[in-house]
Amino acid sequence: MKTIEWKNGKVILIDQTKLPLKEEYIVTDDYQRVAEAIKILSVRGAPAIGVAAAYAVALAAMKSQAKSTKDFLDELGEAIKLIGATRPTAVNLFWALERMKEKASANSHLAVSRLKRVLKEEADLIAAEELEMSKKMGDYGAELIADGDNVLTHCNAGALATVDYGTALAVIRSAHNQGKKIHVYADETRPLLQGARLTTWELMRENIPVTLICDNMAGHFMSLGKVDKIVVGADRVAANGDIANKIGTYSVAVLAKEHNIPFYVAVPVTTIDISIPDGSHIPIEERESHEVTGFGGSQVATEGVTVANPAFDVTPNRYITAIITDKGVLKPPYDKAIARLF
Amino acid sequence: MKTIEWKNGKVILIDQTKLPLKEEYIVTDDYQRVAEAIKILSVRGAPAIGVAAAYAVALAAMKSQAKSTKDFLDELGEAIKLIGATRPTAVNLFWALERMKEKASANSHLAVSRLKRVLKEEADLIAAEELEMSKKMGDYGAELIADGDNVLTHCNAGALATVDYGTALAVIRSAHNQGKKIHVYADETRPLLQGARLTTWELMRENIPVTLICDNMAGHFMSLGKVDKIVVGADRVAANGDIANKIGTYSVAVLAKEHNIPFYVAVPVTTIDISIPDGSHIPIEERESHEVTGFGGSQVATEGVTVANPAFDVTPNRYITAIITDKGVLKPPYDKAIARLF
Repeated sequence: MKTIEWKNGKVILIDQTKLPLKEEYIVTDDYQRVAEAIKILSVRGAPAIGVAAAYAVALAAMKSQAKSTKDFLDELGEAIKLIGATRPTAVNLFWALERMKEKASANSHLAVSRLKRVLKEEADLIAAEELEMSKKMGDYGAELIADGDNVLTHCNAGALATVDYGTALAVIRSAHNQGKKIHVYADETRPLLQGARLTTWELMRENIPVTLICDNMAGHFMSLGKVDKIVVGADRVAANGDIANKIGTYSVAVLAKEHNIPFYVAVPVTTIDISIPDGSHIPIEERESHEVTGFGGSQVATEGVTVANPAFDVTPNRYITAIITDKGVLKPPYDKAIARLF
Repeated sequence: MKTIEWKNGKVILIDQTKLPLKEEYIVTDDYQRVAEAIKILSVRGAPAIGVAAAYAVALAAMKSQAKSTKDFLDELGEAIKLIGATRPTAVNLFWALERMKEKASANSHLAVSRLKRVLKEEADLIAAEELEMSKKMGDYGAELIADGDNVLTHCNAGALATVDYGTALAVIRSAHNQGKKIHVYADETRPLLQGARLTTWELMRENIPVTLICDNMAGHFMSLGKVDKIVVGADRVAANGDIANKIGTYSVAVLAKEHNIPFYVAVPVTTIDISIPDGSHIPIEERESHEVTGFGGSQVATEGVTVANPAFDVTPNRYITAIITDKGVLKPPYDKAIARLF
């Protein structure tokens, strides 16, 4: 299964707001449609957002009517600005846009038609690299997983959050593929239920045993000794190893510490943002209240209630046992381990 | 607002499965209908379950056609067995049934018609006592709440969980009525959303400021210093002060400890079960999977997924700052404080 693909001049995205009830695809040659898809979470997960953004830039390039390279680059700059305004937390978005921008600048001596091809190829390269990173993360991370482990994960850090294979779920996939018997606890992950809708769907397709629980049950199962390891993804990792990930991750990390359960974060190095010293500087997206007051169109909470809906939280590095990357497994102190990578 | 009332030979229950979208009442003279209401959570909350059970016994008594006291008591025993089989965790259910049974035994010398009246009066007394306990808990607990506090609560331990006024929310109501400016964070409380549906509804009716959050956001707001106190109810308190309460309470307690936030449990003494030495002996109800796979009536999770759905968890006494009862505020060591009460 590919989350994002380029085919015949169009981007194909599986519509994650429809899963698991319907398997529908967005097929478009309009970069604004891809930006919209990022905004409304039809495509989500830090690495997937990065690749979708790169392809959106490629679509913008393809559609351009500009005759001069200067006009073309101006147009491209506008498109990049619009794509960058979709979501604030996942750093891969900005990383991918910056890389596309730099590629364009570095090739500004080329004719427009040639430049278009270069940009499309760069987006393909980003997608291919992300997929390669997922597999490497999986292989490094699988070393940390033992036969018979019960692994808890939060949100969806799977194939659907990447081009394919995943980040946290890459670790689980690789362990499973090595023949280790793994059982997964999937937090449902309110408000948008990525765990209930996406993680269970992915794992069940591959016959990896999974039990769905509500977010507030994780501590209970830890207290019963039923959770051996925790693996999550992240949307941004600061230079000191603090991470921002889906709201609720911090609570899972605190509970893990209380129960002496290893807490692992799996990210491609593209999710590490060394420009940010620690987690307090990561912007946290606040989303609309209707995500909390209802679901699937039906209102459940009291009409007119005040709601808070932060989409992410920050987990300080002291709660993290190891950060699994495509370049190897990082251990504390993370500031030094991360500095060595860059 | 009264959650449970006896009027003209019938029991009136507000149907909590319909709130907040509809304010509907169950009006019945059939004890089996009340038992059903307990089972499907039309009435829920440990003290409210106790009172509903007592009234159910009174209804069974009223309806009896038995001529002899022996036949009457046999019939009553059958009814009590059925009512007791509805839910396993809240001790108030068994406490109230036991009290009704003892009342009947102690008056077995009376004629059936007289005995019926005695049982109805006993149920009235239980209801009146519970209401009185709520007010006392509120007054004792309010001493622990400061002007300007942000108080987090989980599930609904309010008027709807009692005859009126509440347990945890009694504390908040009393503090509010004393003129203290309180702001409440209400955990939505998956899977059945008692926080989103019931706690917000109750507090908004009384203009007590409330912000609805998903369960997995509680730790985030604690880490930001936005939660000053936590108050929850309980379904059973063991002799050593361990408590069973709505699933997710344990996670909140662990998070509270990590952030040095006082964690209070408000219960009438009828919720204390001295026959149980510690929390490991409290039976935990496992409920049906559709509560987790659905949301607001619509299916959201992947079809056929395995689900765990424990309705309660146990919070060990070491996480509890104080237990607020109608007989005063208990402090550790709880085994001694509880022993002194009984």
